[in-house]
Amino acid sequence: MFRPEIKVVDCSIRDGGLINKWQFTDDFVLATYKALCEAGVDYAEIGYKATKSLFDPKVYGRWRFCDEDEIKKIFNNIELKAKLACMVDIGRVEDKDILPVNDSVFKLIRVACYCRDVDKAIDLCKMISDKGYETTVNIMAVSTNTEREVDEALNDLSKSEVPSVYVVDSYGNMYSEDITLLVKKYLAALPGKTIGIHTHNNRQLAFANTIQAIIDGANMLDASVYGIGRGPGNCCLELLMSFLQNPKYQIRPLLKVIQEKYLPLRDQIEWGYIIPYMLTGCLNEHPRIAIAWRDSAEKDDFVKFYDKLTMPEPVDEIQTNG
Amino acid sequence: MFRPEIKVVDCSIRDGGLINKWQFTDDFVLATYKALCEAGVDYAEIGYKATKSLFDPKVYGRWRFCDEDEIKKIFNNIELKAKLACMVDIGRVEDKDILPVNDSVFKLIRVACYCRDVDKAIDLCKMISDKGYETTVNIMAVSTNTEREVDEALNDLSKSEVPSVYVVDSYGNMYSEDITLLVKKYLAALPGKTIGIHTHNNRQLAFANTIQAIIDGANMLDASVYGIGRGPGNCCLELLMSFLQNPKYQIRPLLKVIQEKYLPLRDQIEWGYIIPYMLTGCLNEHPRIAIAWRDSAEKDDFVKFYDKLTMPEPVDEIQTNG
Repeated sequence: MFRPEIKVVDCSIRDGGLINKWQFTDDFVLATYKALCEAGVDYAEIGYKATKSLFDPKVYGRWRFCDEDEIKKIFNNIELKAKLACMVDIGRVEDKDILPVNDSVFKLIRVACYCRDVDKAIDLCKMISDKGYETTVNIMAVSTNTEREVDEALNDLSKSEVPSVYVVDSYGNMYSEDITLLVKKYLAALPGKTIGIHTHNNRQLAFANTIQAIIDGANMLDASVYGIGRGPGNCCLELLMSFLQNPKYQIRPLLKVIQEKYLPLRDQIEWGYIIPYMLTGCLNEHPRIAIAWRDSAEKDDFVKFYDKLTMPEPVDEIQTNG
Repeated sequence: MFRPEIKVVDCSIRDGGLINKWQFTDDFVLATYKALCEAGVDYAEIGYKATKSLFDPKVYGRWRFCDEDEIKKIFNNIELKAKLACMVDIGRVEDKDILPVNDSVFKLIRVACYCRDVDKAIDLCKMISDKGYETTVNIMAVSTNTEREVDEALNDLSKSEVPSVYVVDSYGNMYSEDITLLVKKYLAALPGKTIGIHTHNNRQLAFANTIQAIIDGANMLDASVYGIGRGPGNCCLELLMSFLQNPKYQIRPLLKVIQEKYLPLRDQIEWGYIIPYMLTGCLNEHPRIAIAWRDSAEKDDFVKFYDKLTMPEPVDEIQTNG
C-alpha cells in the first residue's frame, strides 16, 4: 500500500516506558532513534512531557519528563531526521513546560485524553499549536464509549483547529470491523483532518487492525520496534514497514536494533502475547489487573486469573439485626 | 460470529510435531486431547499417518505414524468426544495403512498436497472416503501459485467427491485481502463443498486471517493450543474461541492446559513471533531456511539472515581459457 500522505509514528520509548517507568539508558534511546532515522520513520515519540512535581524523578526515568535541556544534550550531535515527538496527558503538564517550538527539540506534541475530556484536550492542543508545534488528539479507550459519546467528542473536535485525531484501541479489544466503523466515522465527522491509528496487540490483531485502518483512510500510523509497549505491546514497526510499499521505509536498520538492543531488553522486561493481557483484551478491560497479576507469584496461573475476571464475586452473607 | 456449520479442527499435535519430530509424551497428548474435548473442539488432529519404512521410528515419535494399535491403547479409556483426525501426505501412505473406518479410532483423514498434485490427492481422498472416513484436501502453499494453477486445481476438485477443501497459507504470507479472494474463489468453484482455512502466524496475521475467512464463508477452522506449530505457529485456538460466539466452545480448559503443559514445553522448543520466520513470511518463502538459521550459532543475527535472503549471490569470477 503506497500513499504519499502516510506518516509513521514510532512510539517505542513512550509506550515502552510504561513497562519500565521510562528507565531506558540514553544509549538505548539513541540506538533506537538512529535506527528509526535510517528506517525512514517520520516521527519518533521518545516520552511524555510532565511536570516534575507530579512524578518522582528517583522512580521515573528522564523519558517520563522530556526536560528540554536534558533531551537537547543527549541529541546534541545528531541529525534530527525523524521529527522528535512527545505525549502529554490532560492535567499533567503546565504551560511553562511547553517552550515555543523554536526553542524546543520537539516538533510534534500529542495529547492523550478520554472521550469525556475532549474539551480539555482541544484547549491543550490550542496552547501547543499556538506555540508552533504539530499536534494530535488521541482519544483513548474508545472501545468503551457509547456511540453518543463518540459522536459528541467528534462534534466538538470538528469545530476545533486540531489537525489530527487518533482512533486508539487502548485495551486491544477491537476487530477490524470496529476499526473500519471508527475510522470511517472519524473521517466523515472531521473533514480535512488527518486520522491516526494506535493499536494494542492483546489478541494478536494490532498489525491487522493497522492495515485495516490504512485501507479505510488513516494516514498517521503508530507502531513500535519489536512491538514494545505495555503488556502485549503495539503494532510491530518492522511488520508495518513490510506492508508499506514506499522506498523511503527500510526494514534492515530495525532488524539491527532489535537484535542488538531489544532482544536483550526482552529478557529483562516482558511484553508480547501473554495470556492475562489476551483475556483483558477479550473482555475489553484496562490491562491494570493483568499487570498486577503478572507482578504476583501467581503470574502463570491463567485459570485463576480467568475465574477472577469472569466469575461473579461471592455474595457476602447479609448481616441483619433480626 | 455464530454459525452452526462452523467446525473447529485443532492441529496442535500434528503441526506442533513439525518442531520436535512428534516426540510428545503420551501424557502431553492426552492432556491436550482432554482439554480440547472440554473446550468443545470438533476435531483433534493428533498426527500424520505414514508408512514406517519412510521414517525412522527411532528419530520420529509415534504421532508421525499414528499406528492404529498404539493409538487405540493410549486412548483406551477415554470418551472420544472430539473426533480424532490425522493427516496424510501424497506418496507417504499406503492403502494397507488405512483401515476401514469401523476398525479405526480416526474419523477424519486429511490429505495435504501441492496444487500440482491435486489429481493424486483426489485419488487418495477417494480411497479414504471409500473406507468410510470424512476427508479434506488441503492445498498447501497456495500463495505461490498462479491464478491459472489454482483455477485448474479447483476445476479438478469440482468434479470430484472431495467434500471439503482448505485454503492454506503455508508460508504465513497472506493479507486478509488474499484470504477473501481465495475463499470466495473456492466457494464459487466448489458449490456444495465446505471450505476450510489453515493459517500461519509469521506476520501475526493468523488470527485476523482466520476471522476474515469466517466472514467470507469458511466453515472448517484450523487452530492450535497457544499457537503451537512449526516456526511462528498457527492461529491460537484460545483466540479463535474468544471470537466464536457459540456456547459449546469454552476457553477455560485451554488456559489450564496452556499453563500446565504448553508453558513448560515452550521453554524447551520454540515457536511464535520470531524474526527469521517473519522475514520468510514477508518474502513468501518456505520456512526451511529460517529453521536452519534458528538451529545455527547465528540464530539471532537477523541482519545477516535478511541480507542472505535479499542480497543477490556474488557472481563467481568466470573461468575462461583465453
